[in-house]
Amino acid sequence: MGKTAQKKREPHHRDVPAPSAAARDDSEITALDLPAAPLTPAMAAYFAKCEEKLGFVPNVLKAYGFDMAKLEAFVAMYNDLMLAPSGLSKLEREMIAVAVSSHNRCYYCLVAHGAAVRQVSGDPALGELMVMNYRAARLSKRHRAMLDFAVKLTAEPWTVEDEDRAGLREVGFSDRDIWDISAVAAFFNMTNRVASATDMRPNTVYHSQAR
Amino acid sequence: MGKTAQKKREPHHRDVPAPSAAARDDSEITALDLPAAPLTPAMAAYFAKCEEKLGFVPNVLKAYGFDMAKLEAFVAMYNDLMLAPSGLSKLEREMIAVAVSSHNRCYYCLVAHGAAVRQVSGDPALGELMVMNYRAARLSKRHRAMLDFAVKLTAEPWTVEDEDRAGLREVGFSDRDIWDISAVAAFFNMTNRVASATDMRPNTVYHSQAR
Amino acid sequence: MGKTAQKKREPHHRDVPAPSAAARDDSEITALDLPAAPLTPAMAAYFAKCEEKLGFVPNVLKAYGFDMAKLEAFVAMYNDLMLAPSGLSKLEREMIAVAVSSHNRCYYCLVAHGAAVRQVSGDPALGELMVMNYRAARLSKRHRAMLDFAVKLTAEPWTVEDEDRAGLREVGFSDRDIWDISAVAAFFNMTNRVASATDMRPNTVYHSQAR
Amino acid sequence: MGKTAQKKREPHHRDVPAPSAAARDDSEITALDLPAAPLTPAMAAYFAKCEEKLGFVPNVLKAYGFDMAKLEAFVAMYNDLMLAPSGLSKLEREMIAVAVSSHNRCYYCLVAHGAAVRQVSGDPALGELMVMNYRAARLSKRHRAMLDFAVKLTAEPWTVEDEDRAGLREVGFSDRDIWDISAVAAFFNMTNRVASATDMRPNTVYHSQAR
Amino acid sequence: MGKTAQKKREPHHRDVPAPSAAARDDSEITALDLPAAPLTPAMAAYFAKCEEKLGFVPNVLKAYGFDMAKLEAFVAMYNDLMLAPSGLSKLEREMIAVAVSSHNRCYYCLVAHGAAVRQVSGDPALGELMVMNYRAARLSKRHRAMLDFAVKLTAEPWTVEDEDRAGLREVGFSDRDIWDISAVAAFFNMTNRVASATDMRPNTVYHSQAR
Amino acid sequence: MGKTAQKKREPHHRDVPAPSAAARDDSEITALDLPAAPLTPAMAAYFAKCEEKLGFVPNVLKAYGFDMAKLEAFVAMYNDLMLAPSGLSKLEREMIAVAVSSHNRCYYCLVAHGAAVRQVSGDPALGELMVMNYRAARLSKRHRAMLDFAVKLTAEPWTVEDEDRAGLREVGFSDRDIWDISAVAAFFNMTNRVASATDMRPNTVYHSQAR
Repeated sequence: MGKTAQKKREPHHRDVPAPSAAARDDSEITALDLPAAPLTPAMAAYFAKCEEKLGFVPNVLKAYGFDMAKLEAFVAMYNDLMLAPSGLSKLEREMIAVAVSSHNRCYYCLVAHGAAVRQVSGDPALGELMVMNYRAARLSKRHRAMLDFAVKLTAEPWTVEDEDRAGLREVGFSDRDIWDISAVAAFFNMTNRVASATDMRPNTVYHSQAR
Repeated sequence: MGKTAQKKREPHHRDVPAPSAAARDDSEITALDLPAAPLTPAMAAYFAKCEEKLGFVPNVLKAYGFDMAKLEAFVAMYNDLMLAPSGLSKLEREMIAVAVSSHNRCYYCLVAHGAAVRQVSGDPALGELMVMNYRAARLSKRHRAMLDFAVKLTAEPWTVEDEDRAGLREVGFSDRDIWDISAVAAFFNMTNRVASATDMRPNTVYHSQAR
Repeated sequence: MGKTAQKKREPHHRDVPAPSAAARDDSEITALDLPAAPLTPAMAAYFAKCEEKLGFVPNVLKAYGFDMAKLEAFVAMYNDLMLAPSGLSKLEREMIAVAVSSHNRCYYCLVAHGAAVRQVSGDPALGELMVMNYRAARLSKRHRAMLDFAVKLTAEPWTVEDEDRAGLREVGFSDRDIWDISAVAAFFNMTNRVASATDMRPNTVYHSQAR
Repeated sequence: MGKTAQKKREPHHRDVPAPSAAARDDSEITALDLPAAPLTPAMAAYFAKCEEKLGFVPNVLKAYGFDMAKLEAFVAMYNDLMLAPSGLSKLEREMIAVAVSSHNRCYYCLVAHGAAVRQVSGDPALGELMVMNYRAARLSKRHRAMLDFAVKLTAEPWTVEDEDRAGLREVGFSDRDIWDISAVAAFFNMTNRVASATDMRPNTVYHSQAR
Repeated sequence: MGKTAQKKREPHHRDVPAPSAAARDDSEITALDLPAAPLTPAMAAYFAKCEEKLGFVPNVLKAYGFDMAKLEAFVAMYNDLMLAPSGLSKLEREMIAVAVSSHNRCYYCLVAHGAAVRQVSGDPALGELMVMNYRAARLSKRHRAMLDFAVKLTAEPWTVEDEDRAGLREVGFSDRDIWDISAVAAFFNMTNRVASATDMRPNTVYHSQAR
Repeated sequence: MGKTAQKKREPHHRDVPAPSAAARDDSEITALDLPAAPLTPAMAAYFAKCEEKLGFVPNVLKAYGFDMAKLEAFVAMYNDLMLAPSGLSKLEREMIAVAVSSHNRCYYCLVAHGAAVRQVSGDPALGELMVMNYRAARLSKRHRAMLDFAVKLTAEPWTVEDEDRAGLREVGFSDRDIWDISAVAAFFNMTNRVASATDMRPNTVYHSQAR
């Protein structure tokens, strides 16, 4: 069973809840034993900004922390996809993240991005619906088409065709929006698999956020 | 689009959170328009006991409330399975309920029984693990074997054979326990489908319980 | 390999066919060793009625016979679903039972309820079609919609939505009928799994009925 | 909707049961309208032999009867596989036929070859077990390995590897036997699809045989 | 691990490329050790014709060469399906062969018939599209409907119904054409499985043809 | 149907083969109409290096060319994963790329990275085996374990657990290697989906490389 070098770098926030026996999320970040590399100045600044804004550094960043080139590439792609200007709102991008992660049953991403949907939307039930079954949510046609596309692309990418793209255009998405829906869904198909392959554990603090 | 007679019987607790736009869980209990039948004395007493103990009547009971014979049969079977003496603890039965409901992506049962796992275990992360992916939980061999059996029985019942039962016996389950694991898993395969078929909505109050 | 207490309670009808080597259906009712409990007066009367009307007690009842609370709850729910007044005919309920059991490849239920379809319909080929592939039967639009809904609910309950319910309404089913279709399909998703989990064997006598 | 030229060539046995409304098996052999070709002398003799030995010409032969080259190739391959000397008994070949056809839910082949299993084995329950779920039958290790291989080859042929062949050798099958198991399983994967593609209907007379 | 008698009968063309370590396609034709039978005059002539026309004898023929009855039945059926007059062009039949073999991930058939598509069409990309994902090709409506039917029949034959046949008629296929599409698709569902069951290896020479 | 701004930027190499009617790979790079952004100096240099080393700019780079931030993030991650020092050889990384893309049936990635496997290995059959069915290749235990892990992570990431990682360690992979296998497999699960979502077309020139 893997240990993690990150264990030593564990945050000691006063108010972090104790990790459960079933999860051990904050004591073993991944099942791989990869010693942390020294942070580059850019990454040190980024981690400090996380601490300041969120109160903690998301475990995924620590997991990538064994190699600065990989961490920087991940951070650059993540921030562009989830935070850069787009025809999709931040909530929409988080909804895609969670619906995709639900199909892939990714514990890390469901916990972390489920919290984000609750927080950004101010609607705890919406977060749960994305985690459990987005088809059960009462969504606008725009949001339903967006998630149907993202989940089809996740489940059976080889069957996505012109008529699927046409379905997005019909509810008002531009070609650039279609790229962004696709790219966010595709990105979480990547990170879901990095997380599952390494048994990555989410920060415990997410569980109680925005309930 | 279905309305529900139950709408008229909606509880007006002071502290029930407002249903979200995405869920509308407390305003439309099912997609079927089935007028509530008068409660039999036994069922009236049972509903009163729910109000007293839980502070609300679970929506599934209201959903069955259009026909007292069906409601009473459901309540009898549910209470026997989940509350009667058994070699399985109540938490174990709730864990099976949620792992099965996760495979079937049943919004109602994941919300209601996910809350039960959090409450009975006192471990919020355990509830989330059962909802999201029980394989990611750090479980005892007993619990892992129990859930593997329950989920295999859910996904491909036609492949369950002697060696699967032998696996349960190896971690200490008796034949009576095997019946109980099977019966609880099978029951939630039923209720998951009644809930999905009727678009049954869980009481909103569950979302914030035991986080 | 499990033995069964029920073995001792094996009926000795003169005309019951010998169980085949491949099936051993009447000598080992389940793979679990659960001693029969004394029948309550109500259940003793019910078993006697089975003997009188059918000439035998269905093995599923003997399988539940280790615990009277479980047996009584099962009998109450079964009889309400399959025999109580409903907008669905008894044949329709049996057709759902068999189509669902075919998806789940449940030997017990296919044998017992396949016989029921043959008997109630007087059409041996109809029973076989339900067992083998209901899509190959020449059915009315009503029956096809009913079975398509039941089998979709069986295979992928998380995808059942308003448009599926609308499809049932279009061919004339009421909301109460939709409940009944759903409840019967859901019930056999439960019993299929109890049967598969315990290797429950059908009474041999079913095989030759109504051919 | 297709009619069939074969309709005109329908046999008028005194004792053929009336086709059911749900099946119409003897009145419309396939959904394609393909005029029967004149039988070659060899095929006329073969059909006469069928009438003499079975009392009827199997509908599959009539379905191929629009083209003598196709009919003769089919008959040659079928008779070699199912009747020529082999390390597999005729019953074993029929068991493979039915287990494969069960996976593919092929109405024609399940009816016709299910009857063959019942007849050749003298065990009606064995026929039903092959139709419904071969895993529920109490089979010898030889037969279980044989059917597991055939069904894996049916369901996921791309995963069959050396260890699967080794499993057959372990229970005593020779390399020639492995070819024969494979070839019979593969052949029914062909005929199941010809039957499903054309909605081929089995002779009604099969239903009551050897029950 | 199987050896093959065919090894001794390996062709020694000057220009056959060396088999790769990963494939060993020309040194071990199947994983079964089946001694070659003496060729009948008809089959000797057929092999000679292959050598003359193709420059080699396709390995599938050598694989069947342990039994002349099986070889002759295979050759008769193959040649009728792929070469006899039909409403389908030879290219269309090869396209079906490859799309079916792609679903079944059959190495032998994808190599041999992928080469045939490249050769007959003169379009190397078309061969790759059939191997990789026919849905990505820009096909006429006729060809798309033909391949959709063939692949549906391959993946889920039990769901093929009148509306699927109607879809073929709408793009101009006759009932005889529907038979031929079905029969070719069904045939490759057979040969894919014979090839996978025996680990049949394609002649190395195919790889470089018509690129 | 989408057009592409990239069409105007199409290279005019003398020796690029004509795109086939079925593929149109070089005339329409994606189905989305996204005007190319001006290349940053870094990207202009990178494109020039591609032209110099490969003789063309891979279409995936042109597809991302509408937004320099996205292009640069993609290039950084791709080059780190596929070209940076690692315990995995470049061939091993390409084998993972193709086996994953085969599961996802991604036309773009199979064409481009299939060519890479052929080229780097000098073994055309190995490239075809990765495209068609890696299980049919004669691989070392190391390579088989590596691809089994990558494909399981692709198909059912939620089932990857400690025993899967242990399997990699048993054949000699370090924890850092496990990260790299996972990250490459995960990355192609992303790019396969970007390519399928946008109908991305590979440069035609790949088809004839290293055959």
